[in-house]
Amino acid sequence: MSKDKPTITMESLASLCKRRGFIFQSSEIYGGINGFWDYGPLGVELKRNIKESWWRAMVRDREDIVGLDASIIMHPRIWEASGHVQGFADPMVDCKKCKGRWRADQLPETKCPQGGPHEYTEARQFNLMFKTNVGPVEEASAVAYLRPETAQGIFAQFNNVLAVSRQKIPFGIAQIGKAFRNEINPRNYTFRSREFEQMELEFFVKPGTDAEWHEYWVKERMKWYQTIGLPEGHLHRYVYPKEELAHYASACVDVMYDFPFGTQELEGIAARGDYDLRRHQEFSGKSMEYFDDETKEKFLPHVVEPSAGVDRIALALLCEAYTEEWVPTAEAAGGEVLAAEPGKQPPQGYEPRVVMRFAPRIAPVKVAVFPLLKNKPELVAKSREVFEMLRKRWPAFWDQAGAIGRRYRRQDEIGTPYGITIDFDTLQDNTVTLRDRDTMKQVRVAIPELPSKLAETLG
Amino acid sequence: MSKDKPTITMESLASLCKRRGFIFQSSEIYGGINGFWDYGPLGVELKRNIKESWWRAMVRDREDIVGLDASIIMHPRIWEASGHVQGFADPMVDCKKCKGRWRADQLPETKCPQGGPHEYTEARQFNLMFKTNVGPVEEASAVAYLRPETAQGIFAQFNNVLAVSRQKIPFGIAQIGKAFRNEINPRNYTFRSREFEQMELEFFVKPGTDAEWHEYWVKERMKWYQTIGLPEGHLHRYVYPKEELAHYASACVDVMYDFPFGTQELEGIAARGDYDLRRHQEFSGKSMEYFDDETKEKFLPHVVEPSAGVDRIALALLCEAYTEEWVPTAEAAGGEVLAAEPGKQPPQGYEPRVVMRFAPRIAPVKVAVFPLLKNKPELVAKSREVFEMLRKRWPAFWDQAGAIGRRYRRQDEIGTPYGITIDFDTLQDNTVTLRDRDTMKQVRVAIPELPSKLAETLG
Repeated sequence: MSKDKPTITMESLASLCKRRGFIFQSSEIYGGINGFWDYGPLGVELKRNIKESWWRAMVRDREDIVGLDASIIMHPRIWEASGHVQGFADPMVDCKKCKGRWRADQLPETKCPQGGPHEYTEARQFNLMFKTNVGPVEEASAVAYLRPETAQGIFAQFNNVLAVSRQKIPFGIAQIGKAFRNEINPRNYTFRSREFEQMELEFFVKPGTDAEWHEYWVKERMKWYQTIGLPEGHLHRYVYPKEELAHYASACVDVMYDFPFGTQELEGIAARGDYDLRRHQEFSGKSMEYFDDETKEKFLPHVVEPSAGVDRIALALLCEAYTEEWVPTAEAAGGEVLAAEPGKQPPQGYEPRVVMRFAPRIAPVKVAVFPLLKNKPELVAKSREVFEMLRKRWPAFWDQAGAIGRRYRRQDEIGTPYGITIDFDTLQDNTVTLRDRDTMKQVRVAIPELPSKLAETLG
Repeated sequence: MSKDKPTITMESLASLCKRRGFIFQSSEIYGGINGFWDYGPLGVELKRNIKESWWRAMVRDREDIVGLDASIIMHPRIWEASGHVQGFADPMVDCKKCKGRWRADQLPETKCPQGGPHEYTEARQFNLMFKTNVGPVEEASAVAYLRPETAQGIFAQFNNVLAVSRQKIPFGIAQIGKAFRNEINPRNYTFRSREFEQMELEFFVKPGTDAEWHEYWVKERMKWYQTIGLPEGHLHRYVYPKEELAHYASACVDVMYDFPFGTQELEGIAARGDYDLRRHQEFSGKSMEYFDDETKEKFLPHVVEPSAGVDRIALALLCEAYTEEWVPTAEAAGGEVLAAEPGKQPPQGYEPRVVMRFAPRIAPVKVAVFPLLKNKPELVAKSREVFEMLRKRWPAFWDQAGAIGRRYRRQDEIGTPYGITIDFDTLQDNTVTLRDRDTMKQVRVAIPELPSKLAETLG
């Protein structure tokens, strides 16, 4: 974690995520299932905002990219062509005595339950694709895989999309969808899981222009992460040295984020040459060549692939947003907000607060509306009126339960940028209190001016 | 199909869907894979609009429903509790001679390849869940299933969602996501496929109020279908008679649509009592009871479940929209549009057109902008200006290629409600031609008035 923010623990983040409904363990009532996670009422909205923001930036706001939604289960030949059947594997060893199985590079420091040390076999390749059978007969010909990436669905439909979209090179095909990898060792909360969601773009270019387009996409993608609230200072590029590149790739850059458990990949941006189209051409016997109307050239397009993980981005946003503070007890009275010191109690006159500092555009709820008191029908009615006005435009939440300070804190914990309180002054002068999540400053705003005031930040 | 619209053939619809990029066969370059489909550039937008419209109506615009996004692979005990491991099966028979396998109620009219008639085994149950293995060891304990419905993820997380959302009964949990069924006989284009997307709501109610809430949801859902463009006259309710209900259900109504291949189900709305929560309570040992603060009662909530298929709704919208017409050759000159007669040529002075009459809110592209001629830089520049203005608000398409009549037809075929042409008059008086997809009527509109004019329909 960078130095401008105290380190947070994944335990405290996971606790908030469960308590407030961002992330639950899948199948928790049955003891969970390793590597699978559910998104609760707020988590699903956070993910929707991430995906919507990506789709807007990549498809809707561009004329040179179109969308696709391919099936998760595809013809098994696709994974032969892509190289996944052959090469998408981790080396595993078994203990000959207890039959335990581990990744060869992650052997356990245990004794064998059968006595003495483990007695390992030679390392063997274990394929990470989930296998299933399609059709009523369980025979070899009906084996199919859950896709380990969405990308191959794009390559397989390259000709169809080209024909219908009337695009010319350079152009791209974008897709959002689930992918599955039977990871030996899922870890770091939702970071490495067995079921996850990808947002992938395959951008097809003229051979020889790979380097410039790769550079273009690295820049574009770095900018995008900043628009959703990951600051430049917490983002890094890992430029693959030549010797780490796949044999067909001419360049690869990972977009990395400073997670509490280390600086880790959010997205890989690879210049993959014509490897994928060439392989599918070979395996399917169908030409994947592009005919350039202007130059009358025929060629296999090269591809630049920005491939991002929705769950990892969600986790980065949660880590980035999570803040523990010590705030003056009577918050309206002013006084400086202090960064909470881990494991310590706040000084006298201060209380702790947890606030999720989401960028407004990805915050699950944009504005909360409160009547100061729930037993005053005029306040309740007026607050409903304001709520109904605002929710037409933004995801809004109305809450009348508990002391107003507690209601603010609940919204702080889910990252709602604005709170609006209807009090007795409102009934006199038609103004409300508008509270800013981050500064906790409160200002009076006339009700008719609320939409334009909020739009300044919420858009 | 109802009598107010000529019958369309699924062949002509599928042909348009492929030609214009709504739906492709999955893995087509490898000969396809039975029961799996991909959505092309327009299909993915159509599905996005359906899902967004459902999410808005069910979650965003309501205070009594929250969202969830559970994993596709869950703990296998979930499917024991739900009854799917035991009962989600079709009866199958094998031929003892040729080893062929069929559904017992759909035996083939072929001879056995081994000679003579097939020699069938007794019918056996074939489970429709796709099976896979999770973790590095292929052993019985690691068997898992691809969910055959999204609903069980909701029941399994009932307690967590209740705790975080502070909802009180009645309230609902909504989810959109993929589900998988190893159908013996996928058919009717995308209608019965092996991988599909569901939109499911579990609405939890106080026991005894089941009937009123069931009635409420049938009405709500019927209304929703009309908002996305399926007219009341093509929708039907199938009310299950008592003897067709599952033993735990008190009512079930299917929302049916008049497909060209028959009147078939889009959505089932079932009052399932406390069956699911009770089973999960039993199998997990965790209480699923709800405590009513006001009455101090503790009870297992009952549930009403509107469960819809995204792909079926998309198919219904495509069927509903697809229209073949005969239109006067010089369309601006007027003349009556005729319904095309299947297999016949249009009369003299007429030409055929295919138009997708999507409701504006679900149309993939809302407005197309054209310069009259591509080789006049002033027209091109002005058309780009209008396009840039409109696309900020609506999905828009700009096209300069080909005769203007052909460009209109292309937009008709993808269902774009409006076409805007920038011509030489535009350069003089700043007005454009606004063409209506359905009537083909053209009116002149001043550019500054375009947004408010379009907003009347597009919102």
